[in-house]
Parts: sequence; structure tokens; C-alpha cells
Amino acid sequence: MRLFDGGKAPNPRRVTVFLAEKGISVPRVPVDMGAMEHKGDAVTALNPLQRLPILELDDGTILTESVAICRYFEALHPEPALFGTGALGQAVVEMWQRRLELSLLGPVSQAFRHLHPAMTAWEVPQVAEWGEANKAKAVRFLEVLDPHLQGKEFVAGDRFSIADITGLIALDFMKPARIAVPEALANVRRWHAALKARPSASA
Amino acid sequence: MRLFDGGKAPNPRRVTVFLAEKGISVPRVPVDMGAMEHKGDAVTALNPLQRLPILELDDGTILTESVAICRYFEALHPEPALFGTGALGQAVVEMWQRRLELSLLGPVSQAFRHLHPAMTAWEVPQVAEWGEANKAKAVRFLEVLDPHLQGKEFVAGDRFSIADITGLIALDFMKPARIAVPEALANVRRWHAALKARPSASA
Repeated sequence: MRLFDGGKAPNPRRVTVFLAEKGISVPRVPVDMGAMEHKGDAVTALNPLQRLPILELDDGTILTESVAICRYFEALHPEPALFGTGALGQAVVEMWQRRLELSLLGPVSQAFRHLHPAMTAWEVPQVAEWGEANKAKAVRFLEVLDPHLQGKEFVAGDRFSIADITGLIALDFMKPARIAVPEALANVRRWHAALKARPSASA
Repeated sequence: MRLFDGGKAPNPRRVTVFLAEKGISVPRVPVDMGAMEHKGDAVTALNPLQRLPILELDDGTILTESVAICRYFEALHPEPALFGTGALGQAVVEMWQRRLELSLLGPVSQAFRHLHPAMTAWEVPQVAEWGEANKAKAVRFLEVLDPHLQGKEFVAGDRFSIADITGLIALDFMKPARIAVPEALANVRRWHAALKARPSASA
């Protein structure tokens, strides 16, 4: 198999951190998203949605969507379990993974795409008012997240999970999106610092 | 357990259709989203993100996020499998579930929220230019989806899955969002008609 990789962009990085936490090495084909190679014929033939990452299996089967790729590796290499264990444990991880994706990573990405000058060719039309609205959405979610993290090492249960990975990616992406974590949100800041200190964060 | 239900809104309806396909009956607490009851103190205490549906277990544990709730029921009642079977089968369902959610249901919802006069209190600010951009995003995705559906009864493999449910909900929601399925997309139209004809669609 081989992984068509988009480097440090948020979704490719989710898979990279996940594989590092699992201790799995996969051959990679780098794709230069800065040069818009993901819109080229080669990537479009694999994924007509023109998004990365893409996992190509040895028989030519194509898997896209970072969380779907991660779930495939979870099934092949169950330990350490990063999607939770048991009916309730897995549902809680899915809940927090989705909350962090839909209410944090999503708004942060929208702010970046609609406000950053480097994104004019990526998001057409850029709508500045919508970008600004998403800065506020991201901060509002962090205000709900902070009390939940009180006394907790991880966001979804007693073990590190893919929900923590989505949180790390989203919080890191706030910097280029030019959104600050409010000083008062001490639990979010402590959690983010702990996630950044894991070896997987610099994989 | 009991399910705090939001009726015909897209996310509550995803769980309703899923439970109907599983043949599972769960006691429900109706919440009138039209009267903004999901923003009231009772719902906020259960889900500070003020979203529905919410599943409350007998011990008081709260699960939110429609797909997380569905996954919990999948673990409790594995048959029929609506999240796929096997490592690859489950990953393919996850891929299509996410494609349909992120590239169709998401844009359709954005178009509805940012353009419909009934949504002025729900989406602040409403940004009409962003709403219009999402109508085009939804149609572009359908143009990619149509050839994939050629000769296929279901979107993700040989069996009905949660990906089909997300597709049904998104295509149905195009009507209030005032987006038409282009006449030329015969496979999308055939698939939608077949999904609407299932008993679960009117559950």
C-alpha cells in the first residue's frame, strides 16, 4: 500500500499523527499541495474530490477521508486502541472526535480559508464575513470544552484517542488561522501543551 | 434510556431512520426545535452545545452526535450491519458516510441556514454569499457522485448502510434548501427514489 500525503495540511497530518501513535510505517507519495498538485490529473484520477490524504491498497482499492483511513488501520492494528473500546467507549470517542471536528477544526479551517490571502485560489469565493463568524464559533466551542477538560488528561475517556488527535490538529491550526486561545481557558491550554509534547505531534 | 428527539431536522432524522432500519424502538422525549427548546436550560444541561439528538442512558450517561449515537446502537445490535463489515468494508462505509456528510449534507445545510428566512435567529450572521456558494458546492459533489452510482444499488458496497441514510437525509433536505438535483444526474435520482421508498424513510 501507499499513502498519498499532503504534508502538514490538517487532514493529512491527522493520519500522520495517528500512524505515529500506532507505530505503523506506510510508504508515502508526497503531493505538493502548495503547488496545487492535489488538483492535478494524477490525484483527481484517484479521488475526484481532489482531497488528501489518499490510501491506495495493493490491489488498487482507494480509500479517502482521513478518519476512514485511520479506522482501517485501527482494524488492522487494534493496539493501542485509538477509537475507544466497548460499545460506550467507542461511542464516546466518536462523539468527541465529531465535536472537535465539526465545532472546532471545521470553524478554524473556515476562518483560515476565507480570510488568509494564500487561500484565494483555494476557496472561491472567499467570504470574509463568514471567516470572521467562524473565529467566534471556534472560541465559543473552546469555552464549552474547557470545563469538560477540568481534571482530565484526555478528552474522551481515560486513554489517548483519535479525538485528542483532532483536538491537537485544530488547536495547532488556530495559529495560521490567527485565532488565539483565550488566556482564561487554562484546561484547554494545558491539554494542548501535553498533546504537543507527545512524539507523534512532530511526526 | 431515552432519546431527546428533534423531529424532522436532519440530524435527529438520521438517528430515526437508522433505528427504523435496525428495528429498534427507543423511548423519545420530543423537543420542539421550531420553538427553540433545544436552546433552553433543560437541553443545555444535557448538551452545552445545544444540539439534538441526545441519548440519555439509564445511568445518566449522555451521548450526543447522531453518528456516535448510531454507532452505539450498532454495537448493541450488530444486525443488520449498517456501518459495514470487515476492516475494508467498514472503512468504505466511513469514507462514503463522511463524503456525503461533508460534501453534501454540510453544504445543503449551509445553504439552508444562510439563505432561508426562517433561519435568521439560528445562524447569526446569515451570509447570503456563503449560502449561494454552498448551493454550487452541493451540485458539484452530486456530479462526482452520479458516475459512482452507475449500476449500484447502494453507495458504499453491496449492502444498505449509514452512508445511504446520510445521502437520503441530504437529498431530502435539498428541497427546503431550494437546490435542485440536475435532471442529467439519473443515477442520483434513481438512488434517491429508491431510498425514499424504503419504510425507514417515513419513520
